Amino acid sequence: MIYDREKILKQIKPSKEEIEKGFRLYKKIREFIRKKFNLEAELQGSFIKGTSLKGDKDLDIFVFFPLDVSKEILKKMGLEIGKKVFEEFKGEYEIKYAEHPYVNGKIENHDLDIVPCYKIDKIEDMKSSVDRTPLHTKFVKRMTEFQKDDARILKKFMKLINVYGSEFKVMGFSGYLCELLILYYGSFENVLKNASEWKLNQKIIFEKMEKEFSDPLIIIDPVDPARNAASCVSLQKFSEFIYYSRKFLKDKKFDRIKIEYRKSEGTELIVLNFKTDLMEDLLFPQLRKTRDFIKDYLEKNGFRIYRSKIFNSGILFEFEVFKLPKMKIHEGPFIYDGENCENFIKKHKNIVIIGDRICTEIERKFKTAEECIDFLIEDREGFGKDLKKARCFITKEEVKEVYD
Amino acid sequence: MIYDREKILKQIKPSKEEIEKGFRLYKKIREFIRKKFNLEAELQGSFIKGTSLKGDKDLDIFVFFPLDVSKEILKKMGLEIGKKVFEEFKGEYEIKYAEHPYVNGKIENHDLDIVPCYKIDKIEDMKSSVDRTPLHTKFVKRMTEFQKDDARILKKFMKLINVYGSEFKVMGFSGYLCELLILYYGSFENVLKNASEWKLNQKIIFEKMEKEFSDPLIIIDPVDPARNAASCVSLQKFSEFIYYSRKFLKDKKFDRIKIEYRKSEGTELIVLNFKTDLMEDLLFPQLRKTRDFIKDYLEKNGFRIYRSKIFNSGILFEFEVFKLPKMKIHEGPFIYDGENCENFIKKHKNIVIIGDRICTEIERKFKTAEECIDFLIEDREGFGKDLKKARCFITKEEVKEVYD
Repeated sequence: MIYDREKILKQIKPSKEEIEKGFRLYKKIREFIRKKFNLEAELQGSFIKGTSLKGDKDLDIFVFFPLDVSKEILKKMGLEIGKKVFEEFKGEYEIKYAEHPYVNGKIENHDLDIVPCYKIDKIEDMKSSVDRTPLHTKFVKRMTEFQKDDARILKKFMKLINVYGSEFKVMGFSGYLCELLILYYGSFENVLKNASEWKLNQKIIFEKMEKEFSDPLIIIDPVDPARNAASCVSLQKFSEFIYYSRKFLKDKKFDRIKIEYRKSEGTELIVLNFKTDLMEDLLFPQLRKTRDFIKDYLEKNGFRIYRSKIFNSGILFEFEVFKLPKMKIHEGPFIYDGENCENFIKKHKNIVIIGDRICTEIERKFKTAEECIDFLIEDREGFGKDLKKARCFITKEEVKEVYD
Repeated sequence: MIYDREKILKQIKPSKEEIEKGFRLYKKIREFIRKKFNLEAELQGSFIKGTSLKGDKDLDIFVFFPLDVSKEILKKMGLEIGKKVFEEFKGEYEIKYAEHPYVNGKIENHDLDIVPCYKIDKIEDMKSSVDRTPLHTKFVKRMTEFQKDDARILKKFMKLINVYGSEFKVMGFSGYLCELLILYYGSFENVLKNASEWKLNQKIIFEKMEKEFSDPLIIIDPVDPARNAASCVSLQKFSEFIYYSRKFLKDKKFDRIKIEYRKSEGTELIVLNFKTDLMEDLLFPQLRKTRDFIKDYLEKNGFRIYRSKIFNSGILFEFEVFKLPKMKIHEGPFIYDGENCENFIKKHKNIVIIGDRICTEIERKFKTAEECIDFLIEDREGFGKDLKKARCFITKEEVKEVYD
């Protein structure tokens, strides 16, 4: 559809009732924690910042501990409080792990995190990265109502063009980054106008910067000037955002960009599937590491990759050169190195001299890329830690939803 | 056969009768030139140097002109004398071209060159490279009889291992180089012992060196210290000589090294044939130039060459990657370059962003290496000068005798 601010907002802005329902639940929980544990609790995230989208059901409730409480007590109490909240409000829950474990579960159709943190006023007192979140919330509250709505539009836009999300699966823009961009450039359209002229290592500094960074995009966190709030944004997502910003400014189309993977004509496909319960933020970096390792190994063995992609449970390789002749030239030492030449000659017959190197024709270890991948699956030395033991098998059908 | 100096010499040294026959012919011609033209003539080459091999029938007779004769007169008179010689001795002849034209023909089963040159005593007076030849002849005459025989053995050895010949077809060692090596290292076996330890840019200096060179082998010409007498030796032939020297020192085998080209299993072959009367010293450099051009072009188009060889009338390409998929990724500008991105987007649909570059998938111009070579044959822009118009066709059968 052609961009129309009011129309878009009607579609994406949560209703008053939706927001009030969330707030009522939050307040009940806050009261419960205050009474039962004598601790302050506060909602964080887009809901409280006024930048949530319709249907967002995430409530992140942070429980504040004074700085003189030990980390162990905080951790233990945090879990205890979380469990008690879900028991009190009859919600199912589980323990999840970020920098610290926390309790996550469902109450009244909302997805709740109960996160213990230290109450800090200045960033120097931070003991764990969650302590910083309330400072972020406080900082972005300075947005005007118009800007809050524009932050919603920017988030939606980023979702449509597939660059939203700071998790490792996407490596794109977080909600907080959207809010910072709106604050810095003033409005949704100004963000896109500026983004369309971004350069590599683009720097956005609110007040000061206390460290140098070399990431594609550098947005110095205003509450922590030694941190790049955009460090998670990959070169790929950074570039895609520039590209689609320009596109939007030209055609004003506010539509989903479908990216469906399709094999090219004449290439060969090998899809490596892993069976694992690993959470995505652990899985995706390992898939990428494994992909890079296999890619490198394949190329060293003469195969040529057309594309390689990550998907939800594996890696896809599309080959430009999949099959190679039986023999290959194996380069030995330079002719001047008599001793090594002698050893090489002892080891190989059929010596050929190419330029000033002693070479021989040897049989390739792998005549097809599939043989090569089969071999790598056997020992998995360079694979991601948790992929070494996961069940693993090869298929040859296309996978539609892939990531870089 | 296992090396036995006497046995080898018996096989390769010309008989007394053979030598005397050549000398008698030379002397008759010398007398004819002296009487008829009042000019001195002298035999050059291995015959007079005492380093010729059995069956060598080349007689190079140089006619000396004083330095005050003009180049035009020398050229004209040279041809005139040559023709008269062949008329007098009833031989067939033709005009050949080196730096200057000269007369070549057959008399009494000998292959005769009649070459006009200036008589010089010091290299500074040289007007054309042929003037230097009598100085070479004079210099190498200092070899002992034993060394002359060893020079014959070294020549034969180099012929057996296919590194003999300074012409562009071979790019190996000249007869003069063999003689210089024997003079420098003393004997055949010492030449090999030393050669087996040669390094890249190996330098051999008799007395002085008046210029720096960067060739694989540098043998400063003792009669012209600003010249590298080994400038024609390619890295390939230099390395092969080192290799076979070592081999001989180990196994003492004095045998022909057969190099017969054989296609490797699973590769594809394309043989480019030219129909041309070009003399070899012009043809081979052009074939090499053309080969390099085509090779480069093929590789830029994604094909991978396993081996490429030159042969008597063309170029052979053996492919590791011969066929490619229909499409390829075509890289466009960096995303930051807004203007060029816009032009690129106008020109191509199906934009893909890879890292920070705008790319697109386009159809390959050539799906097989043969299509690519066919295309190059059409206009032949980068081909050697005389190969641009020569008749040219593709075959796919092996060629046995090839050069690098």
